[in-house]
Parts: sequence; C-alpha cells; structure tokens
Amino acid sequence: MPNSKPPRIEAVEAQRPGTVPNLFADLPSRSTDEVVTGLLSAPGLRIERIVSTGQASPPGFWYDQDRPEWVMVVAGAAVLRFDDEAAPQRMVAGDYLLIAAHRRHRVEWTDPAVATIWLAVHFDPSVTPP
Amino acid sequence: MPNSKPPRIEAVEAQRPGTVPNLFADLPSRSTDEVVTGLLSAPGLRIERIVSTGQASPPGFWYDQDRPEWVMVVAGAAVLRFDDEAAPQRMVAGDYLLIAAHRRHRVEWTDPAVATIWLAVHFDPSVTPP
Repeated sequence: MPNSKPPRIEAVEAQRPGTVPNLFADLPSRSTDEVVTGLLSAPGLRIERIVSTGQASPPGFWYDQDRPEWVMVVAGAAVLRFDDEAAPQRMVAGDYLLIAAHRRHRVEWTDPAVATIWLAVHFDPSVTPP
Repeated sequence: MPNSKPPRIEAVEAQRPGTVPNLFADLPSRSTDEVVTGLLSAPGLRIERIVSTGQASPPGFWYDQDRPEWVMVVAGAAVLRFDDEAAPQRMVAGDYLLIAAHRRHRVEWTDPAVATIWLAVHFDPSVTPP
C-alpha cells in the first residue's frame, strides 16, 4: 500500500549533539535475563545490543524467527546451536553469522564470567528497494 | 512493482558449515586506501567492514550519501566531522551513530598506528514492511 509519509527512522538512544553513544556503556549488572537494548529502529530494520551474563536458552527451547538476523559477538563468548547442524558453534569476539528466517537455533551457553555483548541486526527479507 | 521472486540475501563471505567468519580476520595490511568488505547484502540492506589505517577523506571532500548509514567503530579510533556541526566527533571502540541520508560528513582522521575497524550498515529508508 502506497505510503506518502516519510519513513520513521529512530536512533533509539537519543544522540545529543557532541556526544556519541557507546556499545560498551551502561552495561547492565549481572541480571537474571539477557538485556536487549534497541540501538536503531527503521522500517524493516532493527539493530539491537544484547547483553548476556551466563544465560542460555531454556532446555528444549528453540528460536524460530520470522525475520532473518545477522548477529556478531562483540565481546565475550557463546555457544550457538542450530537444529540442522550436529555440532554446536562456539563464537568469540568478532565472529558473525547470518541466521535465516525460521532456522531454528538456541543459545547453549554464554560465558558466566564476563558480559557477552551481541550486536543483532534484524531485517525484513521481503522488503525490496523501490 | 510486485515481485514474486524470493529476495536475494547473501552472506557475502561464504559460511562453510562449522566455521564462523570473524570481523578481525584477514585484516588488510597497511594500505593506501581504506578497504571495504561486504559482510551481508540483502534488499535494502548492506553490512560492510571498513578498515582504515590512517586514511582520512581528501581535503574538501564530503560524503553525501543517498542512504542512511549506521556506523560503529569496533576497534581503533577516528575523527568524524559533520558539515552541520562546529566540532568534530572523536570516535573510539564501541562508539556508534546514525548518519542520515545526505548529511554531509567526512573522516578527518583515523589512527595511523592501528587498524580502525568500522562496521557500517547501509539501509534504504524508503523500504516499508509489507
């Protein structure tokens, strides 16, 4: 459906002039849950910081997401498992991968000793340039 | 225009089963130019690694991009200048910001002593979810 309104692009953490937000700032202290912070929100795109401090997916739980996700471990370490692969995938700082929509996966482990910081880019595969 | 073909999503560096690409791998040696490597290409979205080793934008040159760009310095240090701001912006590892389309900017400086690694997410502001 045509839409004449300008698209909404939102830097979720407001950028004051002269300041730059930092991925390593305001890290949550050890938490029961992973902490997700939106960094950018735009039509068909969302960039998030996810901070894990030892959490893993609950036993038997699999993520099955409608949208593809490009994810990078920026700090820390994690073990990711895909339902369609025999061996789990250990990830360290700088490791990145694309998780296709509906590719079932789970986080088996994150390092309990440090904050594992993920950068996650969720995007809509069905958007097409005009 | 309707398009029945599935969208093309490409992890630009092929992912062999059991291996994960790493942002810090295969860093170019000191180069005359910045080195840009595509990490993900999808409709309306492109994720790149940019490695600078002391380069700056040529005198008088301003980037004036059709698409917004979300950029993070992952390693190293840089100074970014916006045409509409008096003071340049120093950026260190973890610093990120959104550069709106057609917001004129230039790279004043990157650290000549180390590789400055940028993660750049170029996206199309006019895409809208179906």
